[in-house]
Amino acid sequence: MLKGISSILSPELLKILMEMGHGDELVIGDGNFPAAAYARRLVRLDGHGVPQILEAILQLYPLDKYADNVIMMEVPATDPVETPIWETYRKIALEDPHFKGFVFEERFAFYERAKKAYAIIATGESAIYANIIIKKGVV
Amino acid sequence: MLKGISSILSPELLKILMEMGHGDELVIGDGNFPAAAYARRLVRLDGHGVPQILEAILQLYPLDKYADNVIMMEVPATDPVETPIWETYRKIALEDPHFKGFVFEERFAFYERAKKAYAIIATGESAIYANIIIKKGVV
Amino acid sequence: MLKGISSILSPELLKILMEMGHGDELVIGDGNFPAAAYARRLVRLDGHGVPQILEAILQLYPLDKYADNVIMMEVPATDPVETPIWETYRKIALEDPHFKGFVFEERFAFYERAKKAYAIIATGESAIYANIIIKKGVV
Amino acid sequence: MLKGISSILSPELLKILMEMGHGDELVIGDGNFPAAAYARRLVRLDGHGVPQILEAILQLYPLDKYADNVIMMEVPATDPVETPIWETYRKIALEDPHFKGFVFEERFAFYERAKKAYAIIATGESAIYANIIIKKGVV
Amino acid sequence: MLKGISSILSPELLKILMEMGHGDELVIGDGNFPAAAYARRLVRLDGHGVPQILEAILQLYPLDKYADNVIMMEVPATDPVETPIWETYRKIALEDPHFKGFVFEERFAFYERAKKAYAIIATGESAIYANIIIKKGVV
Amino acid sequence: MLKGISSILSPELLKILMEMGHGDELVIGDGNFPAAAYARRLVRLDGHGVPQILEAILQLYPLDKYADNVIMMEVPATDPVETPIWETYRKIALEDPHFKGFVFEERFAFYERAKKAYAIIATGESAIYANIIIKKGVV
Amino acid sequence: MLKGISSILSPELLKILMEMGHGDELVIGDGNFPAAAYARRLVRLDGHGVPQILEAILQLYPLDKYADNVIMMEVPATDPVETPIWETYRKIALEDPHFKGFVFEERFAFYERAKKAYAIIATGESAIYANIIIKKGVV
Amino acid sequence: MLKGISSILSPELLKILMEMGHGDELVIGDGNFPAAAYARRLVRLDGHGVPQILEAILQLYPLDKYADNVIMMEVPATDPVETPIWETYRKIALEDPHFKGFVFEERFAFYERAKKAYAIIATGESAIYANIIIKKGVV
Amino acid sequence: MLKGISSILSPELLKILMEMGHGDELVIGDGNFPAAAYARRLVRLDGHGVPQILEAILQLYPLDKYADNVIMMEVPATDPVETPIWETYRKIALEDPHFKGFVFEERFAFYERAKKAYAIIATGESAIYANIIIKKGVV
Amino acid sequence: MLKGISSILSPELLKILMEMGHGDELVIGDGNFPAAAYARRLVRLDGHGVPQILEAILQLYPLDKYADNVIMMEVPATDPVETPIWETYRKIALEDPHFKGFVFEERFAFYERAKKAYAIIATGESAIYANIIIKKGVV
Repeated sequence: MLKGISSILSPELLKILMEMGHGDELVIGDGNFPAAAYARRLVRLDGHGVPQILEAILQLYPLDKYADNVIMMEVPATDPVETPIWETYRKIALEDPHFKGFVFEERFAFYERAKKAYAIIATGESAIYANIIIKKGVV
Repeated sequence: MLKGISSILSPELLKILMEMGHGDELVIGDGNFPAAAYARRLVRLDGHGVPQILEAILQLYPLDKYADNVIMMEVPATDPVETPIWETYRKIALEDPHFKGFVFEERFAFYERAKKAYAIIATGESAIYANIIIKKGVV
Repeated sequence: MLKGISSILSPELLKILMEMGHGDELVIGDGNFPAAAYARRLVRLDGHGVPQILEAILQLYPLDKYADNVIMMEVPATDPVETPIWETYRKIALEDPHFKGFVFEERFAFYERAKKAYAIIATGESAIYANIIIKKGVV
Repeated sequence: MLKGISSILSPELLKILMEMGHGDELVIGDGNFPAAAYARRLVRLDGHGVPQILEAILQLYPLDKYADNVIMMEVPATDPVETPIWETYRKIALEDPHFKGFVFEERFAFYERAKKAYAIIATGESAIYANIIIKKGVV
Repeated sequence: MLKGISSILSPELLKILMEMGHGDELVIGDGNFPAAAYARRLVRLDGHGVPQILEAILQLYPLDKYADNVIMMEVPATDPVETPIWETYRKIALEDPHFKGFVFEERFAFYERAKKAYAIIATGESAIYANIIIKKGVV
Repeated sequence: MLKGISSILSPELLKILMEMGHGDELVIGDGNFPAAAYARRLVRLDGHGVPQILEAILQLYPLDKYADNVIMMEVPATDPVETPIWETYRKIALEDPHFKGFVFEERFAFYERAKKAYAIIATGESAIYANIIIKKGVV
Repeated sequence: MLKGISSILSPELLKILMEMGHGDELVIGDGNFPAAAYARRLVRLDGHGVPQILEAILQLYPLDKYADNVIMMEVPATDPVETPIWETYRKIALEDPHFKGFVFEERFAFYERAKKAYAIIATGESAIYANIIIKKGVV
Repeated sequence: MLKGISSILSPELLKILMEMGHGDELVIGDGNFPAAAYARRLVRLDGHGVPQILEAILQLYPLDKYADNVIMMEVPATDPVETPIWETYRKIALEDPHFKGFVFEERFAFYERAKKAYAIIATGESAIYANIIIKKGVV
Repeated sequence: MLKGISSILSPELLKILMEMGHGDELVIGDGNFPAAAYARRLVRLDGHGVPQILEAILQLYPLDKYADNVIMMEVPATDPVETPIWETYRKIALEDPHFKGFVFEERFAFYERAKKAYAIIATGESAIYANIIIKKGVV
Repeated sequence: MLKGISSILSPELLKILMEMGHGDELVIGDGNFPAAAYARRLVRLDGHGVPQILEAILQLYPLDKYADNVIMMEVPATDPVETPIWETYRKIALEDPHFKGFVFEERFAFYERAKKAYAIIATGESAIYANIIIKKGVV
C-alpha cells in the first residue's frame, strides 16, 4: 500500500496503468467475462465490483480526448434486460473532462477488441452486460 | 467463478488451498504485512479485508485438530492498542469444530513462521495486528 | 483436498474451471484423444473415466444457456460402433437445467474446435467416441 | 496410453520412474499428505487410491535388495487407529522378491525423508497413515 | 531403467510416446535429417540406428488402422541409390497387425509433414533415405 | 505515466514500493554502488540523482515510526571528504513526520544490510557516500 | 557506470545499441508513446527528456547513409500545435555527417513502423509529437 | 577447449553445428550485419574476422553437394566497392570437394534468407559485403 | 553430426566437454546410477554402454596430469562380484599419457563427489560397479 | 558495434561492465580456467587472448584505489614455469593510475574468490597461469 493510492489497485495493475500510453485500451470485465481466454495481460481483482475499480483507476488515468474513449458491450435488441450499472459508470466517467458518452460494440466484436487491448481486469462483478473498455489519453 | 464457491477466492488461491496438506500453514496478512518479502507463494487479494477472506476459506479448509491451529501476532505489553478485529476472527473460527483459541507469536517470531508457511495472502485490511496464520487439518 | 469438493478434481483443473468465462469451452478427451497435441492448456487425469470427471465438474460449472452447450464427436455413417457411454453422459448433463441435448461435430472439425478450447482434459477413458466438449455459462 | 502399461501411470510419472536410479526413493502420499510443500518433484494422481498406483508401479520398478525398501509412517502409541490398508500394501509388495517387510519412521522424520526423496506422488487416498516410501533397486 | 522396457528408450521419449494420441505422427530421422530445425518436440538418441529404435517403440505403440501409418521419404527417380534398410523396417513393422505397407512423400513434402508431427527423434543412423514417420493408432 | 505521480518513478519501481510492507527496507544507491551484485530486486534509474528520486518516493512511502528509518553509509574517520548531499537528504526526509535523523553503518555492514533489503535502486548519482536506506512504515 | 560513457545510458540500452546492425531502427518515444504495447524490446528511461538521450546515443551510434535515417511522427494539418523540440533534435542530429533532414510518418503508420523496430525507449519527455526513429548505419 | 578443435569455436557454436542437418543454412555475418534482429539462433563471436571462423567451421562441416552451397550478398551495380575478402573465402571453400562457386542474393533477399537460416554468427569482421551463407551437406 | 566427431557424442555433451576446464570432473554412470538425482548438469545417452562413450570422449578430452584422474566406485570387501569391465576401461584410459591407474571411492563418498561434478552422463550400461569419474586436464 | 568501443567487447560484456560497482571483481580466465563451473555470470570470448581483452576493458573500467586491485594466480614454488605474459599484463595495467602491482592467491583460494566475483570471462588464452582478477573502482 502507498499513501494516497486506493488499496483496491494491485501493484501489478498500477504498473500496467503506468506502462500504458496514448491510445492503449484497458478492459474491465464482469465476473463472467472470459478474461483469461482473451487477455494479452491479465490482472485479477476477484471479489470486487467494477464501479469501485473504475473509480480508483480514473483518479490516475486520463481518457483519450481524440477518440471514442468508453466502450460498452451492446445488449441485443431481443434481450429485455435492464442495465442500471451503466448509470453508475456514467457518473464515474463524468469526472473525466474528456468523457464523450458510451460507444457500443456487439458481443463478439467486443471480444475481438478485448483481445487487442493492453490488459484485461477480471473482477467479481455480478451485474450483467457490465464489461467496459477505457481508452487512455495523454497525461 | 463457479457455482457455490465465494467469488472472493481467486483461482490461484483455490489451487493453493487444495494443494496444501495436513500441517501446512497459511498466512493472511493485513495491508501492511511484508507479504511479498517473506512469501514462498504469494497470493494478492488487494482491497479486501481479512474477515471476508477468512470466512470464505474456512468454508472449504479444515483446521488441524492435532496442533495449535490459529496463530496471531502478539501485541507488545507496551502497546495500548485495541484489537477488536480479533473478536470477529474468533466468531468465524468457531464455525470449525477443531478451533482451540488463539496462540500468539512475538512479531519477529511470527515473521520467521510466515517465511516457512505454504503461502501468504496479501490483503488490504486496514486494522492493525490483524495478521493470522491457520494450520490445515485432515479433510 | 478441500471440504465438499470432489477429490477427482486436481488443483490445476479447479483453477482452470474458475478462470473460464461465459462461452469458453472445455474438452474432456478419452484415452486415445490427441490431447497434448492440440491443447492450449492441458490437464491430465490419467486412469479416470470421463463420467466421474464430467459429474464432478458439472457440480460447479454451469452450461451456457445461450448456445449449444454439449458437443460430441460424430460417428461416421459407415461405422457400426455402439456408444452406450453417451447415455451415461446424457443422464449426468440432465442435472443442468440448461442442457439442450447433444450437438455433433465430424472428427476433424471436432479437433479444430478442441484446438480453440480453453483447456483439454486427458483421461484414461477406454470407451470410444467418448470425447465431449462443454461450453460454460453464466454463474 | 501405450500397450501393456497401466493407464493410471501418467506420462510424467513414467518418465520419473525411468530416471530414478539405485537407492533413490519415491513417496506415495495419501490425500492429506503435504506433498506440494515437500516435494522436489511432484506428480499428482488426484482421485486415485494408493493400492492401484503401488501395484502399477511395482510392475515396472524393482525394490532395493541392499537396503530397507518399504518405509511407512509410524502410528503413535497413543493413537488407537486401525490401518487395514497396510495389509493390502503388504500383499502387493510381496510380488517383489526383495520385499523385506515394513520399516517405520515417526511422522516428522518421515517428512524429512520425504523432502529428500526423488519424487512424491499426491493421491486422493482417503485412508489414514497410508503414506508409503519405496526405494528403487537395480534393474 | 525399468523392468521390461528397452533401455534404448529415454525417459523423455517414453513420456512423449504416452502423451501421443490417435492420429498423431512421430518422425524417426536418420543422422543427417534436419531434426532440430523442424521439430515441435525434439528427442535425441545420438549414436543409435533407426531399426533398434523402431523395434523398441513398436513394442508399445500401435499403428493407426484407419489411415496410412508408415510414411517414407521418396527416392527421386534420378537417384540410383539402393535402400536395403527399408526391408529391415518392413520386417519390424509387420509385427503390427495394422501395418499397410509404405507410403512415400517427396523430400520437401516430407519435411513439411515432419514440422507438424508431434515429435522428431534424431538418431545416428548412417543409412540414407532412412527417415520414417509412424502414425499412432488406438490402444 | 499517470496523473499525479512523478514521471521519475518507473512502473516497476511503483509496483515494488506498493508490494513492500512494514519494516521492509529500500536502498537507493549512488552511481558507484554495487547494486546489481547485491540486489534481491534491482531497479535501474540510470542518469538520475538520488535527491529527486528520494523526494518522489517519500510522497508515497511512509517511514517506519517504530525503528531507525534512514540509514546512511558511514564515512571512515580517516577520510576528510565532505558530504553536502546529506543536508539535501535531510531536508527531504524532514517532510515525513516520523523521520528521526540518520543512523550510520560502516561500509561492509551497509552492504550486508543492502543484500537483505527488499530492493535496490541503481542511480547515476555522482556524489560520493550518497547511498541511503529507507525503512517502510505503516500506511 | 564506465569511463567516457554517459550515465544516462542504461547497461541494457548500451547492449541493445551494440547488438543493432546496419538498417535496424530505434524508436525514442515521448512520455505518452504506447511503448510497452508495441516494443519487440523495451528499454525504460523514465523521467528523462528525449534530447539528452538522443545526444548520448548519437555519440556512439552512426546514422545510415544509404537511407532515410531520422523519422518523425507527422502533425495532422488540422492540428495547430507548435513543435519547438524538433529544432533541438535537428541540432543534435546535425552532429552526424549522414543526417539528411527529417522524414515524416502519419501517426498510425509510425506505430506500425515502431512495431518492427529493433527496440523502443520509453522516456518521460513531456513535449508532444516528440517521438523519433533513428536508423543505424555502418560503423 | 578440446583436443583438435579450434578454440575459436565456442561450445554453443559447436553444439549448433552438430544439431544442423542436411539442407540447413548457417549465416556468418560481418560486424555490421543485423544479426540479432534476424537470427532464429544467435551466436556471437565478437572481435573475430570471418575467414578464421569459416576455416574452422569447414574443418567439421560438409557443404551440400545437392544444391547451391555458398551464398554471398550481391554488390549493387552502382557501388564501385572492391571485395578482396571474397577471394579469401573462395580459397577456404575450395578445401571442400563440393564447393560450386558463389551464388549471389540481393541485400534484402539475403536478409529474408538469413531469417530462415538455422543460426547466424555475429562477428567483428570489418570488411564490407563480407556476409556469407553456407548450406550443410551429408556427413 | 560433424566430420571426424563420433556420432555417439550428443551436441549437448560436446558443448559440456568444451565448457569444462582444468580440474572439473565428469561422471559416466551405469544404467542404475542415480544420475538424475545428483547431477548439476545431466546428459542422457540411453541405450549405450560406457566403453564406447569413454573412448569417444577421450579422443577429445585430456586427463589431468596434476591429480588423480580416473576414479571408480569401490566394491565392498564382502561382495564377491567380478568387474571385467574395469579392464576395458583401463585399456581405453591408457591411450592418455597422463592416466595414472584407478583411484577408488566408497559408494556414498562416490555419490558425494558426483554431486559436485560438472556433469553426469546417464547410460544404459548393464555391467555393475561400472561408474567412472574422469578429471579434465589442460589442453 | 559502436563508434569508439572496441569490437572485442561483446554487448553482454559491456552491459556487465556497466552494471558493476565499486569493489566488484571481474575474472578473466585463460583457456583452461574452469569458468563455466564457477561463474555467477559467464561471458565467453572464445578464441581471444587475455591481453587484448584486458586492454579493451581498462579503457572503460577504473581500478579500485582503495584496495588491492589486480589479483593473479600464484605459481607453486615447485613449478619452474615461466610466465612472460605477466609482464604484458603489467604494462597494460600501468595505464591505470591506481594500479598497485600484483597480489597473488594460491590456486584453490583463487577459485574461491572467482566464485564470488561478479562475472568471469572465458577466453582462448593459451598461456598458463594467465588468469587475472581486476577490482572495479569509482568512476
